Amino acid sequence: MTSNNMSKIQIAKAKRLRSTPYTSRIEKQGLKAYTTYNHMLLPAAFEGSLEETYYHLKKYVQIWDVAAERQVEISGNDAAELVQLMTCRDLSKSKDLRCYYCPIIDDQARLINDPVVLRINENKWWLSIADSDVILFAKGLAIGKNYKVIITEPDVNIMAVQGPKSFTLMEKVFGKSITDLKFFGFDYFDFKGTKHLIARSGWSKQGGYEVYVEHTKSGLELYDHLFEIGKEFNVKPGCPHLIERIESALLSYGNDFDLNDNPLECGFDKYVNLDNDIEFLGKQKLIDIKKSGVSKKLMGVKIDLDKINLSQAIDITIDSKRVGEVRSAVYSPTFNKVIAIAMVDKPYFVEDTPINVVIDNVPKTGILCNIPFV
Amino acid sequence: MTSNNMSKIQIAKAKRLRSTPYTSRIEKQGLKAYTTYNHMLLPAAFEGSLEETYYHLKKYVQIWDVAAERQVEISGNDAAELVQLMTCRDLSKSKDLRCYYCPIIDDQARLINDPVVLRINENKWWLSIADSDVILFAKGLAIGKNYKVIITEPDVNIMAVQGPKSFTLMEKVFGKSITDLKFFGFDYFDFKGTKHLIARSGWSKQGGYEVYVEHTKSGLELYDHLFEIGKEFNVKPGCPHLIERIESALLSYGNDFDLNDNPLECGFDKYVNLDNDIEFLGKQKLIDIKKSGVSKKLMGVKIDLDKINLSQAIDITIDSKRVGEVRSAVYSPTFNKVIAIAMVDKPYFVEDTPINVVIDNVPKTGILCNIPFV
Repeated sequence: MTSNNMSKIQIAKAKRLRSTPYTSRIEKQGLKAYTTYNHMLLPAAFEGSLEETYYHLKKYVQIWDVAAERQVEISGNDAAELVQLMTCRDLSKSKDLRCYYCPIIDDQARLINDPVVLRINENKWWLSIADSDVILFAKGLAIGKNYKVIITEPDVNIMAVQGPKSFTLMEKVFGKSITDLKFFGFDYFDFKGTKHLIARSGWSKQGGYEVYVEHTKSGLELYDHLFEIGKEFNVKPGCPHLIERIESALLSYGNDFDLNDNPLECGFDKYVNLDNDIEFLGKQKLIDIKKSGVSKKLMGVKIDLDKINLSQAIDITIDSKRVGEVRSAVYSPTFNKVIAIAMVDKPYFVEDTPINVVIDNVPKTGILCNIPFV
Repeated sequence: MTSNNMSKIQIAKAKRLRSTPYTSRIEKQGLKAYTTYNHMLLPAAFEGSLEETYYHLKKYVQIWDVAAERQVEISGNDAAELVQLMTCRDLSKSKDLRCYYCPIIDDQARLINDPVVLRINENKWWLSIADSDVILFAKGLAIGKNYKVIITEPDVNIMAVQGPKSFTLMEKVFGKSITDLKFFGFDYFDFKGTKHLIARSGWSKQGGYEVYVEHTKSGLELYDHLFEIGKEFNVKPGCPHLIERIESALLSYGNDFDLNDNPLECGFDKYVNLDNDIEFLGKQKLIDIKKSGVSKKLMGVKIDLDKINLSQAIDITIDSKRVGEVRSAVYSPTFNKVIAIAMVDKPYFVEDTPINVVIDNVPKTGILCNIPFV
């Protein structure tokens, strides 16, 4: 989702880079850097080194302003058909109050986004999107196909509660029932008389919840309340974390893959349904690709280095021939090396293959590996 | 397009916020702040105060890295039909090698973008877009309507040459013929053996050109050459300028208007064609709106203040009733007050109406005016 790379260059604010309901709070809580995401400010670093905030996230609990994960609401009689048309994942057996990770692709099977899709009911869906204007793709399709749907961006501002202590913290607020939520389940929970949609989800592998705040006033009270009662769990403000997300192999749209890639190249095979008659865009293309095999593939890379600061792709070479590119990278304290996510050309995408990269003008060698990293 | 508001908070870089071919150069040339635009870094401030850079732009010449003005290329037999479907402007008499400012709207006449559209030929168009993913809207429509088109984002990185000395500077490089270009005309011009598409256009009213760089190597040579030979014209790096653009009433998508507004509310009447049989999305809606009159309208506001730092909309009230919002604002040295762009509800959108705003917790009064400001 985001890099925590500091640039020493300021961000210029404007209404166009929308603030969130939490902005004034996080700016008083030690915010150091922003990125932008879906035309909105997304916190990218707080006080403390990248490693300190990493260990904190893995041990305690953090509250994240991830309002930039915008919702595309699709409702109406043809809502289910439109949502299915946009994703290669089979949603025919989907259930109300469940989240589904869904690659969204175009007619050439190129990736447009990878939202978590919330089925609120058969005729009302939320696509909790990564950083691209899915609303415009959905509108174009709906207009072109004359679907009976209403497509909007509701005023929903997610606050994530992430980390191993998130369960006890949230239980203290919402009671035992919230710990019964299964992973990627959601339901409505009461906070001082206001119902909030809360999912067991989030962009870390440390466990936690996402509160889809529709009622801002109550949501801000909840935000403050979580910090107040969370002191005993060492709660801190935080944000999606570069080390944690790469170690956990949480892929980031725009960083690790984009409109130039297809789901099979990104290892999304289990979300690609080619086994039944369900129709979706790009299906025939995916059948063809599956038959002939992918021409490139996302791989891990391990490099013996103790730091890296990546802000654009870095070429990967073998014997001076370009065979791919590193797209995300970070120094991992767990592996004690730089770990990276790279798109590697056929036939080089083989585990244990040595590769060359140039980092800060210095040639380095690395080893390809599968992801997640082990 | 951008605010030059400094936030004191850093921008976190990542591949997702794409660098441009000029990034390494501008970062050595005194860059102080970035904004982001179309998933790309857009410079927002260089050394010197906002007023100093304003006077420089109005007197000399600046080179701008506006690669973030991405192109959506639509080509193929149905290209002209798709482009016309997306805009309320009549393109039936459009000519090759001409630019057209075109509001793009959906079926409800809500604004999706306001690109400059370049007609390269009948079957090849570039939409030089503001900050939203028009490519996804175009793809959705093309898929839904089964159009025979190819839609891509070509690797084009615009460098703008803006300011009154831009004409003599560009003449020095490209010869007399470039000064024959009419406003919003474009053609191909040779630089050391490489042809570049150059338009007489740009996001200031100070005159100038935009070089649509398709050949990066030659484009970078041109960039360096312009700085070298531009010394006698006091050339400097620059970027879209908040004072200049508001004084010139250049509207900014995402700041002054967005998906919640229609072209008639934004004063785009002369780009709204309701007079013939040309079909486009939202036409009937616009006919209805025109008949009943708009319910809100973009206006100017003048406020007796010597500074403002706007990063989100500010409510406008009359007798404690909310009647609109300020969307962009800056202190103007020309008017010696704050000038602002505001969306004002019916029936309050009347010139010379006094209004109330609260700026930095202090109540202030302002006066509505028409735009452009006089």
